[in-house]
Amino acid sequence: MFQTDLVSIPDSLIGQVVGGDQRAIARLATHIENDSISRDQIVAELFAFGGRAHVVGVTGPPGAGKSSLLAGLAKVVSARGQRIAIVAIDPSSPKSGGATLGDRIRMSESALDPNVFVRSLASRDRNDGLAPAAADLTLLFDAAGYDYVAIETVGSGQDQLEVADLVHTTVLVQIPGAGDSVQLLKAGAMEIADIYVVNKSDLPGAQRVSRDIRSMLGLVPDPDGIWQPPIVLTSVDDPTGFEKLADAMERHFAFLIARDLLEDRKRRMARSELKRAVDRRVRIGSGSTIDELIDQLVSRSTTPERAAQRFLAELVQDDTER
Amino acid sequence: MFQTDLVSIPDSLIGQVVGGDQRAIARLATHIENDSISRDQIVAELFAFGGRAHVVGVTGPPGAGKSSLLAGLAKVVSARGQRIAIVAIDPSSPKSGGATLGDRIRMSESALDPNVFVRSLASRDRNDGLAPAAADLTLLFDAAGYDYVAIETVGSGQDQLEVADLVHTTVLVQIPGAGDSVQLLKAGAMEIADIYVVNKSDLPGAQRVSRDIRSMLGLVPDPDGIWQPPIVLTSVDDPTGFEKLADAMERHFAFLIARDLLEDRKRRMARSELKRAVDRRVRIGSGSTIDELIDQLVSRSTTPERAAQRFLAELVQDDTER
Repeated sequence: MFQTDLVSIPDSLIGQVVGGDQRAIARLATHIENDSISRDQIVAELFAFGGRAHVVGVTGPPGAGKSSLLAGLAKVVSARGQRIAIVAIDPSSPKSGGATLGDRIRMSESALDPNVFVRSLASRDRNDGLAPAAADLTLLFDAAGYDYVAIETVGSGQDQLEVADLVHTTVLVQIPGAGDSVQLLKAGAMEIADIYVVNKSDLPGAQRVSRDIRSMLGLVPDPDGIWQPPIVLTSVDDPTGFEKLADAMERHFAFLIARDLLEDRKRRMARSELKRAVDRRVRIGSGSTIDELIDQLVSRSTTPERAAQRFLAELVQDDTER
Repeated sequence: MFQTDLVSIPDSLIGQVVGGDQRAIARLATHIENDSISRDQIVAELFAFGGRAHVVGVTGPPGAGKSSLLAGLAKVVSARGQRIAIVAIDPSSPKSGGATLGDRIRMSESALDPNVFVRSLASRDRNDGLAPAAADLTLLFDAAGYDYVAIETVGSGQDQLEVADLVHTTVLVQIPGAGDSVQLLKAGAMEIADIYVVNKSDLPGAQRVSRDIRSMLGLVPDPDGIWQPPIVLTSVDDPTGFEKLADAMERHFAFLIARDLLEDRKRRMARSELKRAVDRRVRIGSGSTIDELIDQLVSRSTTPERAAQRFLAELVQDDTER
């Protein structure tokens, strides 16, 4: 009753992906973006191979230069012999299923580097939270053996908070002269930031932003009680900033392990994974049972709660019979 | 396993609400806002009494004067001997559980009118969609016998579209000089508008906005094929505009009935009611089963899909046993 026709994952594609085959990765990424294979099936096949990458969320307001920051970071990571995949959520691009022109230009150097994989994902709307595909693409790159997966958010208030459920380390990017400090606090972003970046630090005011963040950090209680979020100054012209950011990311991951906090983060990530899987299953589609329930609701001969109970019972029944 | 401690609805409260007792309505509204009684229980008790009000969504950008428009409309409706309840979603107010100062001032006249009930609801964030409580408050006023329930949205892109699933008639408010026409189309709002209002029509440019809307309507295919959305000019200083708006709302409802389209709208509303009830039930809380599933996900010994199946199966099992 709830099933739609599904295309199966082509034979051997998962094996190629796990083996790190870039063309296979790109193909599966396209399937994820286009929703052309059952999400459930992809996640189920990849899941056992995931859980090894260091997943990093990069948030901050639009215009903070997150893409070029990531391009600079990718170069440093690659030079260290490690592999990084970047999932960039692009607010302006149409749902194209591929990288956008903007990204291709911004990340042109990265594109030639075999240690770097950039995939951009269109968000339908600035008001959207994080696209569900972002989590699945992250799993894809994780399973494919990348050392780092970085998720670049659009920078809306909501996706900043949502990304924290998908990552080990959250990087909050600020720039000189963009908005006051109070704004920052309001968005709740400071509670989730593990590392601060002041990007475009060649602009005047960078030191002041850094000082403002430092003084605000005194006000915000650190949920883990110990980690002191570093503030890293970066600029496209100076690779040492990106080196420092890569170091800070490594230090944060080591800290999570040393303090037995990695488990907590992994549990939070697993919880949000469970939530997404549940949401995928309970989507209310069409069919005779749905029609009947809607009829009963329209005539007020049942209540929404009883209808929901029956909907879920049938869903579970279907599972059992399969 | 999934149950939390619930407070029961006080005896006789539902009876008083259905009887139109304003203090009882206010009390139950506060329970809905504070989530202090099980939402499921409230909806279950009220549902059989709902389905009679004409529910109207009022959307449009922030600053379009939606609150004063509704105050003007309420006055006209009341003068015609009908009762109207207004659910106003307020982006700026803290989650206070009561009307905000702003509303009290804006709607001071309405507050003295026994035919008008204004309830404002804080939205946590501008990026939020419609608060789930908005739907439950609408049901409350519907069950309490109001002829009209009007939902005033914040005016974010998302809540404009979401409100269309809750209402019979969508009113889209525009003002002179605010943004270009292309913006309007992008938000997808034109496809859902049943009535256009050009508010603050005493400002220069009102006629031009009206003309722009009219010419754009030529471009957008009307999903029902017949209804020609009227464009009503309103201004705080001129009650005839509000009279025309009230007339247009009545005409739209009569049209829905005459063309057998009311049933379709009601089915759409019932579907979204079902969706909300399902979402309430599948919230992932805490408990030993959840902990166990999360453990298994962290150790990658299950997949998100299998975990979701088990979660839903236990939820349904719990229902059966109760």
